[in-house]
Amino acid sequence: MTMPISRFPVPELSALPDDIREKILAVQEKAGFVPNFFLTLAYWPDEFRAFFAYHDALMLKKTGNLSKADREMIVTATSAKNNCLYCVVAHGAILRIYSKNALVADQVAVNHLKADITPREKAMLDFAIKVCLDSQAVGDRDYEVLRQYSFDDEDIWDIAAITAFFGLSNRMANVISMRPNEEFFLMGRSPR
Amino acid sequence: MTMPISRFPVPELSALPDDIREKILAVQEKAGFVPNFFLTLAYWPDEFRAFFAYHDALMLKKTGNLSKADREMIVTATSAKNNCLYCVVAHGAILRIYSKNALVADQVAVNHLKADITPREKAMLDFAIKVCLDSQAVGDRDYEVLRQYSFDDEDIWDIAAITAFFGLSNRMANVISMRPNEEFFLMGRSPR
Amino acid sequence: MTMPISRFPVPELSALPDDIREKILAVQEKAGFVPNFFLTLAYWPDEFRAFFAYHDALMLKKTGNLSKADREMIVTATSAKNNCLYCVVAHGAILRIYSKNALVADQVAVNHLKADITPREKAMLDFAIKVCLDSQAVGDRDYEVLRQYSFDDEDIWDIAAITAFFGLSNRMANVISMRPNEEFFLMGRSPR
Amino acid sequence: MTMPISRFPVPELSALPDDIREKILAVQEKAGFVPNFFLTLAYWPDEFRAFFAYHDALMLKKTGNLSKADREMIVTATSAKNNCLYCVVAHGAILRIYSKNALVADQVAVNHLKADITPREKAMLDFAIKVCLDSQAVGDRDYEVLRQYSFDDEDIWDIAAITAFFGLSNRMANVISMRPNEEFFLMGRSPR
Amino acid sequence: MTMPISRFPVPELSALPDDIREKILAVQEKAGFVPNFFLTLAYWPDEFRAFFAYHDALMLKKTGNLSKADREMIVTATSAKNNCLYCVVAHGAILRIYSKNALVADQVAVNHLKADITPREKAMLDFAIKVCLDSQAVGDRDYEVLRQYSFDDEDIWDIAAITAFFGLSNRMANVISMRPNEEFFLMGRSPR
Amino acid sequence: MTMPISRFPVPELSALPDDIREKILAVQEKAGFVPNFFLTLAYWPDEFRAFFAYHDALMLKKTGNLSKADREMIVTATSAKNNCLYCVVAHGAILRIYSKNALVADQVAVNHLKADITPREKAMLDFAIKVCLDSQAVGDRDYEVLRQYSFDDEDIWDIAAITAFFGLSNRMANVISMRPNEEFFLMGRSPR
Repeated sequence: MTMPISRFPVPELSALPDDIREKILAVQEKAGFVPNFFLTLAYWPDEFRAFFAYHDALMLKKTGNLSKADREMIVTATSAKNNCLYCVVAHGAILRIYSKNALVADQVAVNHLKADITPREKAMLDFAIKVCLDSQAVGDRDYEVLRQYSFDDEDIWDIAAITAFFGLSNRMANVISMRPNEEFFLMGRSPR
Repeated sequence: MTMPISRFPVPELSALPDDIREKILAVQEKAGFVPNFFLTLAYWPDEFRAFFAYHDALMLKKTGNLSKADREMIVTATSAKNNCLYCVVAHGAILRIYSKNALVADQVAVNHLKADITPREKAMLDFAIKVCLDSQAVGDRDYEVLRQYSFDDEDIWDIAAITAFFGLSNRMANVISMRPNEEFFLMGRSPR
Repeated sequence: MTMPISRFPVPELSALPDDIREKILAVQEKAGFVPNFFLTLAYWPDEFRAFFAYHDALMLKKTGNLSKADREMIVTATSAKNNCLYCVVAHGAILRIYSKNALVADQVAVNHLKADITPREKAMLDFAIKVCLDSQAVGDRDYEVLRQYSFDDEDIWDIAAITAFFGLSNRMANVISMRPNEEFFLMGRSPR
Repeated sequence: MTMPISRFPVPELSALPDDIREKILAVQEKAGFVPNFFLTLAYWPDEFRAFFAYHDALMLKKTGNLSKADREMIVTATSAKNNCLYCVVAHGAILRIYSKNALVADQVAVNHLKADITPREKAMLDFAIKVCLDSQAVGDRDYEVLRQYSFDDEDIWDIAAITAFFGLSNRMANVISMRPNEEFFLMGRSPR
Repeated sequence: MTMPISRFPVPELSALPDDIREKILAVQEKAGFVPNFFLTLAYWPDEFRAFFAYHDALMLKKTGNLSKADREMIVTATSAKNNCLYCVVAHGAILRIYSKNALVADQVAVNHLKADITPREKAMLDFAIKVCLDSQAVGDRDYEVLRQYSFDDEDIWDIAAITAFFGLSNRMANVISMRPNEEFFLMGRSPR
Repeated sequence: MTMPISRFPVPELSALPDDIREKILAVQEKAGFVPNFFLTLAYWPDEFRAFFAYHDALMLKKTGNLSKADREMIVTATSAKNNCLYCVVAHGAILRIYSKNALVADQVAVNHLKADITPREKAMLDFAIKVCLDSQAVGDRDYEVLRQYSFDDEDIWDIAAITAFFGLSNRMANVISMRPNEEFFLMGRSPR
């Protein structure tokens, strides 16, 4: 039984507004395929535009001390707490590529406490998971721990914002049963 | 002891990019004060722009069957589940105004099962709260229940998207200890 | 849709035993209305008498270091954890009046960690919430923390007893869907 | 290591107000020993009086369809959910005596779903446990199920009130580490 | 209503393989009755043999610092967390006998924090309960605490292994509604 | 940072009892490497023997309607609920091989409700997850659902027993921080 890409209709590329179609074609050019998140969300063009503007503000920003692998590690670990199949599989793939580490995505998805990560990365994920599951209890002590690992205020904001933003993605992907593209499952796993 | 507006620095209006300052001044003109969410988020202009584009796509959209009061009721009820002080107080105020009901915001924030709402509204909030707290378990049965109350696919998407988007807001407001403006506490409470 | 005052029949004042009717009339004289808790509980006169004897022993006692506002703050915060609409609304109102603070009731009901309260008050509510949600784990360490804030043994007993007693109220109000009087929603909110 | 009876001072019988001393002596006469709950609570005479007035209103009432064994079964099962050692041991003993069943107290304390009880008793405990752990969700469906087993409105109130009242006891006993008398452990266990 | 021994058929002794029948008869000789666990599990001979080989490796081992009473205390406390009637009743009985303490089994089953146990035993149960309920979070700090109480690596392994093994038993007993023999309820309770 | 294979010493093959060394060499011959579970558990030979006797009784049995892929699917899904890195990775690999499906292991580990599985497999995993997380609540209704999908009593026992047995493995692997062999991560992922 193969599940469909989404519970909702998936628009044809040709039917999309130009700016959205161009963005999707650019991704396809780069990745070799169109990630389902793009197609399913394009059903609502205004949300699509806002979503990717937000995404890019958080994931492509030039400042701060979080590496691209850090950012994807946060997404992978917190998406697993939200049991979001699409995001764990897709961002786990990107994490493997950015970190050049074939194992770490599965490790942080199942149990970050047993992963091959540094104490700094563990503190980062401890905080992200608290923001994901129990943000109401975040307080002074959490900030102090992060500062001990040289995260500054911008970094703390970014860890929280990435977690919060992908919490949005996780909920939408869960609600519409968004299916991850098969390509993601194998990306970045081969020995280098 | 009065808590500050945010754990993070709050930018001066004059120091903000023009488009953001203008948006904030427009809100101030309309509301009579600047909601703290605008000021605190303006610290990161790109996120500010994406956040409000997303917000407007969901909350100001012209299509679908959700009223403005429905939308604010979803925000109030789910923000309470996330224990987000800012959003419960601010969106509870807006809910009182749109619904012309001085009681319903406190009711849905404390326990929507005891609120003066219709069965349709209760089904809407049941679903929103499930998306908020346990989105991984959303399935066919949830869609069926909503359709019994004449919610169509667009409405279901909107309930989920509003919940997911304000889950993002809730987490950011919790992490930075965002303080609601005092004006919100009393708005919409007076007898009409 | 306006919900009824209770799932159970609400007795006529004239049908009540004299001592209960007199107590209710005295409250009405003082408050300007009869709180629904009095009417609904009067259905069972012996429970009514015991309930208010207990209530008065805890809330009107002359000894100990808890102020009246402290006591109402405990009730408001723990009733919110039990999602009891009646008690959050009614005791939130009394808290606003005793504390002469229009904001604090909503703050502690949504998230006491973000409220404008002192460290002493925060420690008091931390303990009350633990008694409310996880009393089996209360131990030495909890006592030590409270003593650091000058709570003595009587105060610790009182915080626990108030929490435990209103846990009883919360459960009864939830089971019978007790409706808070509309008067409570606005009490103590106006600028002084 | 034998734990003391209470974290708090236990008053001497001779130092108690007459009415309280007499009530305690009457219990001692009947039971052969003074249950620690009486001694520890006597430290605060007004609470003692209100507590036992409430207790007697619920547990000694003459009307309704709940037997004495039903009432003690509710106390035993819900006290176990609150991990209250005193109440599970003391009321488990009384349940064994009233039910003339040496096994049922341990059964309902560990898992009422595996106990030798009737479907009516199971429905009663299902409801009591919901009131104990999740009263905010009690609704129409719960009432319907109970009525199928011939519980009327008074019975439903009583199940809820007994659960709520002993939730108060459970919290106080947990907070003060109240120790059950050794006599309770063996009461009602011998073959008849 | 007396529940049956198991949801599954219980084999006749005469129909069992010789080695299993002999083991069961030996237990009967020693205990005076056949514990239902033996009979119900004998339905699947290979699992029976492996189960008791594992059981004996953990519970009858000659090395390490855990006493027989320690081992049974772990079983009783963690089986209570899994709400397993059979194991709480049967191993509670054995705990009473090995510890020569008529009270401790009920105490650790309801709330080990209120039991008459040593700080060493409390640390042992704290760890066992964490392994039972939240093994994914076990880490360095847990090992350090146990070592402070002179538990060595073998002991830590044994506490975890006993907890994990009886977690298996608990789940099987719950799934098949395994009934504890009546004999267990009274064993070890009489004054010595 | 690469984590060690275990918190405990890992024995040399040459130091192991003959029967255990032979079993391990046989696995190595077949798999091409020695799974770390074998080495780490061999530290305690009696437990090793019992563990694998139990394992083989459940996973290699000839009767019943569960396929090898079914069994591994149960292990993968429930090990994910226990956040056991070793078992999710190792048994996910075996599941990919037996099912000849490169995607299903990641799917059921993250969210079995979104996996490409049949309704029969979904019912099987629903039950396994209930046994894993809430066995005390298993009852008639669960048996009925499984029978609707043609699972007979043996199958139900097997689903429960596999879940319970790997719950044991999960707890041990979590406690000793058992590291999965790198070989498992890529096994069964390549297009066939």
